[in-house]
Amino acid sequence: MIHPTALIDNKAQLGSGVSVGPYTIIHGNVIIGDDTDIGSHCEIGVPSALSGGAPLIIGKSSLIRSHSVFYEGSEFGEKLSTGHRVTVREQTKAGAGLQIGTLSDIQGHCTIGNYVKFHSNVHIGQHSSIGNYVWIFPYVVLTNDPHPPSNVMMGVTIEDFVAIATMSMILPGVTVKSGALVGAHSSVNKTVEPDTVVAGSPAKFICNTSAIKLKDGSGESAYPWRRHFHRGYPEAAVASWVAEFASAKDQRPD
Amino acid sequence: MIHPTALIDNKAQLGSGVSVGPYTIIHGNVIIGDDTDIGSHCEIGVPSALSGGAPLIIGKSSLIRSHSVFYEGSEFGEKLSTGHRVTVREQTKAGAGLQIGTLSDIQGHCTIGNYVKFHSNVHIGQHSSIGNYVWIFPYVVLTNDPHPPSNVMMGVTIEDFVAIATMSMILPGVTVKSGALVGAHSSVNKTVEPDTVVAGSPAKFICNTSAIKLKDGSGESAYPWRRHFHRGYPEAAVASWVAEFASAKDQRPD
Amino acid sequence: MIHPTALIDNKAQLGSGVSVGPYTIIHGNVIIGDDTDIGSHCEIGVPSALSGGAPLIIGKSSLIRSHSVFYEGSEFGEKLSTGHRVTVREQTKAGAGLQIGTLSDIQGHCTIGNYVKFHSNVHIGQHSSIGNYVWIFPYVVLTNDPHPPSNVMMGVTIEDFVAIATMSMILPGVTVKSGALVGAHSSVNKTVEPDTVVAGSPAKFICNTSAIKLKDGSGESAYPWRRHFHRGYPEAAVASWVAEFASAKDQRPD
Repeated sequence: MIHPTALIDNKAQLGSGVSVGPYTIIHGNVIIGDDTDIGSHCEIGVPSALSGGAPLIIGKSSLIRSHSVFYEGSEFGEKLSTGHRVTVREQTKAGAGLQIGTLSDIQGHCTIGNYVKFHSNVHIGQHSSIGNYVWIFPYVVLTNDPHPPSNVMMGVTIEDFVAIATMSMILPGVTVKSGALVGAHSSVNKTVEPDTVVAGSPAKFICNTSAIKLKDGSGESAYPWRRHFHRGYPEAAVASWVAEFASAKDQRPD
Repeated sequence: MIHPTALIDNKAQLGSGVSVGPYTIIHGNVIIGDDTDIGSHCEIGVPSALSGGAPLIIGKSSLIRSHSVFYEGSEFGEKLSTGHRVTVREQTKAGAGLQIGTLSDIQGHCTIGNYVKFHSNVHIGQHSSIGNYVWIFPYVVLTNDPHPPSNVMMGVTIEDFVAIATMSMILPGVTVKSGALVGAHSSVNKTVEPDTVVAGSPAKFICNTSAIKLKDGSGESAYPWRRHFHRGYPEAAVASWVAEFASAKDQRPD
Repeated sequence: MIHPTALIDNKAQLGSGVSVGPYTIIHGNVIIGDDTDIGSHCEIGVPSALSGGAPLIIGKSSLIRSHSVFYEGSEFGEKLSTGHRVTVREQTKAGAGLQIGTLSDIQGHCTIGNYVKFHSNVHIGQHSSIGNYVWIFPYVVLTNDPHPPSNVMMGVTIEDFVAIATMSMILPGVTVKSGALVGAHSSVNKTVEPDTVVAGSPAKFICNTSAIKLKDGSGESAYPWRRHFHRGYPEAAVASWVAEFASAKDQRPD
């Protein structure tokens, strides 16, 4: 399970059932949970003065694909899953089930909730704060410097169930509130209200998310997406979402 | 020609004259044509449940540059040429002469014609359908989900001779018709008519492509580009293009 | 300091105190200055017909992070510092203190001054000309082809102290003059005047840079940024900037 060409420091703590691919390097200040698979050509636990000496902790049953780089000093819950060539710097703390797409870059000092999904080529600036069940699509950038270059850092805040569509950016210090949708190719420079859709550059209010209908012929609302999209979420979360909307339906007048 | 550090599965089928660089991995379900060069630090033929068991087939006289990742279950014609760190997932079928620039990502389930050129850092979403002699420039994204996240997949269609300029995106299900030009930094949300230029976000009709003049002092139209740009295309194609425009010139009134 | 798995050509000239990480390849036509560190999984000095036979020269006290690729035929001053997975093609000449962020791609035939900083995922097209103390932020693209695809190459010119904010693009042949700021998510299609702010797509004049105030409570102007932002610059430059603004302050009427 450990390829003979993998270079693993004696001090690294690997759980049972961990596999490590060819030509991968694992440094010493690393704790990897049981049954985690690490692909080829990775560098895991890169030493850094910015880590404060904290280890890199990867939860159990995770999958890190090839050519990825993780620094020491970050912590991930179980079932982390990455694409190829992801980069994660120091002092990020993420919950369970984080998905990081190919080429995505988490710059460090970020807080990330449970079951967040970053698609490919996403750039998460330092000091971003991200809730639970968030979706961030390709080529989205979360920024932090209000007048670059400066020493001021204003991370963005993304609340639960938000979806940020492809090639959008969130400007420094902005909050996107729970359940909101940022349309593709947008630049968001102020607070986005809960369960609303914004789009454009600068992004403007378009409608409430409930006004968007699924293009599958059902005539149902596409949002909140947790009503109809359950793939890859834990059973308990899905059960709570099903119950939430079943009871909403019961309360509708006929 | 096969570097001693390359890890090549016994079952991989390599043609004559194939070279493989240092620290590259070639899995078993792979067929590579004659005279193909594969650079260093690649992973070729990554096993995947999504491949349907199909092999990765790379045509002869191809060049795959370093740090690239190809999954099993895709097929490429001869003279494939890639930059560094490209990613190609399962179930893509491409013709001859495909060029994939550095950092580009083909997400799989795509159909691609002959002599298509993707520049650097292009993201081709699942279920994209791309014709022949298409150009896609850096940081272009082809999307597929009309109300993310959902289970609906509406790939885009790009017809022959289209050029999509830098940092543009094509929204789900949109068709860009033959010979059209999408200007830089655009977001395209509806059909683009043949031989027209669109630009903006959302993209609007600007002019016919014939109205754009070359900035080389010749006063000639820049489009159709096949009239003046021939570098890297097969002789037969170039000859047919030359004939096409020679006869058009003959028909002009003097 | 040279890892036993590093593959180093006999003809490569490595200065004293150079370190090379595991699984890195260094080709023969390479000259690396003293005390430079090269990370793992890199390929340095890739041979190329486009180099004109010139070597790759990396100045002393440089740091090249993992998975990076440099071609032969380019030259960098001392204290080059890169992120992970950068790509640099042939015939680029850069001064001292260049910083190249993770995933950035310099396409070659570029001229770059001293102490220029490219953040992550920047794409510098061929024939770009960049002054001193320039900042280019994530997902910025400098283009060069006015009617793609064509054989016309019109590189962009970026003068000293310019800052180009996230996800902006500069169209072919455009000049951004000294001290200007390009706002995020902009597309610049004409000359930007010195010490002005432009934004939008196409980018329009917004204000003079002096009108932007720091968001740190000081009430000071955020630009010229060299008045307040000194991190990572050489002492002599910082001293000259301090003197420049001290004397400006002396000349203010009380």
